[in-house]
Amino acid sequence: MATEADRVLIFDTTLRDGEQSPGCSMTQPEKLRVARALADLGVDVIEAGFPAASRGDWEAVHAVAQEVQGPVIAALARCTRADIEAAARALQPAPRRRLHVFLATSAIHRQYKLNMAQDEIVRAAVEAVKIAREFCDDVEFSPEDASRTELDFLARVVGAVIEAGATTVNIPDTVGYTVPDEFGELFRYLRQNVPGIDKVRLSVHCHDDLGMAVANSLTAVVAGARQIECTINGIGERAGNCSLEEVVMAMATRSQFFNLRTGIQTNRLYPVSRLLSNITGQPIPRNKAVIGENAFAHESGIHQHGMLKNAQTYEIMRPEDVGLSRSNLVLGKHSGRHAFRERVQELGFELDELELNRVFEEFKALADRKKELFDGDIEALVLRAEGSAHGPWSLGALEVSSQLGASATATVRLQHADGRTPTGKASGDGPVDAAYKAIEQATGLVVKVRKFEVHAVTVGEDAQGETVVYVDYNGRSYRGSSVSTDIIEASCKALLEVINRIEQSQQGGARLAAREATPAAAAKSAVKH
Amino acid sequence: MATEADRVLIFDTTLRDGEQSPGCSMTQPEKLRVARALADLGVDVIEAGFPAASRGDWEAVHAVAQEVQGPVIAALARCTRADIEAAARALQPAPRRRLHVFLATSAIHRQYKLNMAQDEIVRAAVEAVKIAREFCDDVEFSPEDASRTELDFLARVVGAVIEAGATTVNIPDTVGYTVPDEFGELFRYLRQNVPGIDKVRLSVHCHDDLGMAVANSLTAVVAGARQIECTINGIGERAGNCSLEEVVMAMATRSQFFNLRTGIQTNRLYPVSRLLSNITGQPIPRNKAVIGENAFAHESGIHQHGMLKNAQTYEIMRPEDVGLSRSNLVLGKHSGRHAFRERVQELGFELDELELNRVFEEFKALADRKKELFDGDIEALVLRAEGSAHGPWSLGALEVSSQLGASATATVRLQHADGRTPTGKASGDGPVDAAYKAIEQATGLVVKVRKFEVHAVTVGEDAQGETVVYVDYNGRSYRGSSVSTDIIEASCKALLEVINRIEQSQQGGARLAAREATPAAAAKSAVKH
Repeated sequence: MATEADRVLIFDTTLRDGEQSPGCSMTQPEKLRVARALADLGVDVIEAGFPAASRGDWEAVHAVAQEVQGPVIAALARCTRADIEAAARALQPAPRRRLHVFLATSAIHRQYKLNMAQDEIVRAAVEAVKIAREFCDDVEFSPEDASRTELDFLARVVGAVIEAGATTVNIPDTVGYTVPDEFGELFRYLRQNVPGIDKVRLSVHCHDDLGMAVANSLTAVVAGARQIECTINGIGERAGNCSLEEVVMAMATRSQFFNLRTGIQTNRLYPVSRLLSNITGQPIPRNKAVIGENAFAHESGIHQHGMLKNAQTYEIMRPEDVGLSRSNLVLGKHSGRHAFRERVQELGFELDELELNRVFEEFKALADRKKELFDGDIEALVLRAEGSAHGPWSLGALEVSSQLGASATATVRLQHADGRTPTGKASGDGPVDAAYKAIEQATGLVVKVRKFEVHAVTVGEDAQGETVVYVDYNGRSYRGSSVSTDIIEASCKALLEVINRIEQSQQGGARLAAREATPAAAAKSAVKH
Repeated sequence: MATEADRVLIFDTTLRDGEQSPGCSMTQPEKLRVARALADLGVDVIEAGFPAASRGDWEAVHAVAQEVQGPVIAALARCTRADIEAAARALQPAPRRRLHVFLATSAIHRQYKLNMAQDEIVRAAVEAVKIAREFCDDVEFSPEDASRTELDFLARVVGAVIEAGATTVNIPDTVGYTVPDEFGELFRYLRQNVPGIDKVRLSVHCHDDLGMAVANSLTAVVAGARQIECTINGIGERAGNCSLEEVVMAMATRSQFFNLRTGIQTNRLYPVSRLLSNITGQPIPRNKAVIGENAFAHESGIHQHGMLKNAQTYEIMRPEDVGLSRSNLVLGKHSGRHAFRERVQELGFELDELELNRVFEEFKALADRKKELFDGDIEALVLRAEGSAHGPWSLGALEVSSQLGASATATVRLQHADGRTPTGKASGDGPVDAAYKAIEQATGLVVKVRKFEVHAVTVGEDAQGETVVYVDYNGRSYRGSSVSTDIIEASCKALLEVINRIEQSQQGGARLAAREATPAAAAKSAVKH
């Protein structure tokens, strides 16, 4: 029989540790979409950000606290009153909230980062937990770089914060250094040597630098932890955090071994993973466990003897368990609204009537250009329905011509919300280069393109491609993306998305509109666990 | 002091288990390049293929056996005389060779795949090992799906093959099902219950379906295994195999914990990983441990307090330990041959004088088009120097023009080795679609494009992009790629690479030239461990 003791909380830090990794920054509307999807997925805690890092972070946490129902909303803070107050204010609207304070405890961090002695660390941690308890009954403490901290000192810190009122103690393997046997020992040591530790919830937070984040997290759970901190698609600093989908499916698939349960609706894993991949522009590797294109044998076109007779010969989970539909039903211009709605639902999306109507219109428009529409096309339509930054610029006209061995030329006419329709004409090394120069000319905005990628979202002759462009402007990094069957059109629209973001920032909505590709705030980069 | 007992053999199966996964098929010249790179990396065993699967596989194993010096060359065989003889003949030229026979042992495989009783399994395994020993003193046996096999039956099989003459016994977690604690127990059980097990080398082979391949492999090693089967970049069936770079760097980084050593030159890990990524067209995820773009904190532009004072606050390995150079020295059109050669060497490539000259010429040509050349540009030049399928078709002229809202048009003139210069003109949905139709018209070859991707290989306004195109033709899948600053040009050249491969196949060199994107041979797909 399942009891509370078997229940492992899933603490998702996609919006905090994930979001602060290079290439994964999100705007506030994007963070809200992810947070809602996480709530639907059934995570127990959403760490929404680090409010003291920047005004944009504060506002995103506040928005999530205000609008997302269900999970506990958590916010991160260093051990200072200013940080904790900022976090507490940002969390105010949430019915269930948690303050998460952290301080590094390892010798190397004490010496090189903090320049603090052991006694000072303990004092600061205790003080911070007490301040946090003034605002909130649910307080989590993390001794950063715990896995490289002297065991006896770690036990001392953990004991002190529990006494000070921490209700969850999280043990981070900040640098992804530990191995299962060692990490299990650490948890057993703490449980044996820290008075009062059984009164609090033990948590684990792993990084994947040596490829063992999932195994280390599960070892901690076997040794008594009852909360796992993880991220969708395993995004996060350096090699990333423990993958939510892997750790959850490991417990589900090996339920006889672990005898543990989570509140995750596993059939929503695939849609959430796709949503995040779409928002961050980071494709999911083909051989990624659970959610990759090759993860299920049946997907790879291998239908050999054993598989045909019994899928379990090579499949330990079923695609439908993680929300991957077995069919790849093709829709076309004659498909009706009803068939479209059904397919959208089967793909794991929930749209209200208004959204459905809008996406269906786009579907019909696309069906005019494209013979067959696959699941990937529909996903792209739904995922982009509310994704991109709108206005003030849009593409009015675009002409490109290029010739092998000579420069390409491009002419653009843009439309601005204020009525202007400036044009630009330029030549360059290839049509994208030419078109980008023409857009720069028309807008008067000179940007530096850092990176340019096209990912196929569907298959076929007339497949749609998602173009993602990374741009530097004025010391900040921006990312824009667009989906089209025409690669040049998609490239231009992706750049215009960036330019729209830049212009919105300049008009004062700065913190909300800027989607930075690298975390700029110094405070933010100081947080690594 | 290091002794033989501390030494863990690295058995690389990139060319067998890796190569048979969807999207990772390689041509024989590509397999040879990878095999040479693996030898330079210092792997102990190269599993070069499964000779009975197809004539192409046989020839690739034969070529590796003939041309690659250093490591033991292994080949896979089912438990039949025909398979074993094919493998033995293919391996003949290798000074050091190993026959690797396998047979599934789990109840589900016995029932659904093999329809064999336990006694029959033991008999077949013993018989096969004896046959293999007729050809070779070095014989490895793998009980497929060992981790789901009844422990007592597994012990019985292992004991029987040892008695029959197997010198290495490999324990595969074929479906990526096990967890460290359980897998360690399995190894301890075998060591306690199988007579003669200490006379053979125990090996481990893990898959990453639950994200634990690395941890499971290391647990096996702690429990007595002394060979790890793994692949570069973790490619392989479904979620892939244990990543060579992760498992090796885990042992190196935590050497005090493991007290084990390998023969791997870790500073060659990054170049080998890049080579394989380039050949397979599978990009390395940003947050991939050890070799991803974000793996090292210094790479991500985060230079915060602790990092600046002591990199070890957040870095447990140094980039140079895995062959990733800290500098990203920019070269340009004025860079001389000497600077170029130095940079190529620093990037971990070894070119002979002839190759260097050729690549340097390409470098100068590129420097005329592109202001600054980064490490990625140079890598792309070197990696592609001998990579692509040459002739008979090449691109003579290409003109495209496109207009928003209207179809794009393209005109191409191709050159064939036989002197023909056919032209084609077509319109399509976007310039790539139009150009592809024009090429089809000119060559008379109608293909089905399945997937189209562009990966940035460098940064900057005039960055080069690698276009990868997946094409179906006549029931087979092909992959072509090309690098250029002009995306339309790269797209056309990638398609021509495919068409060249198709034409070469038709001219009889079929098995050598065809680079299938999905493994077709039924025999091949029957091998999954």
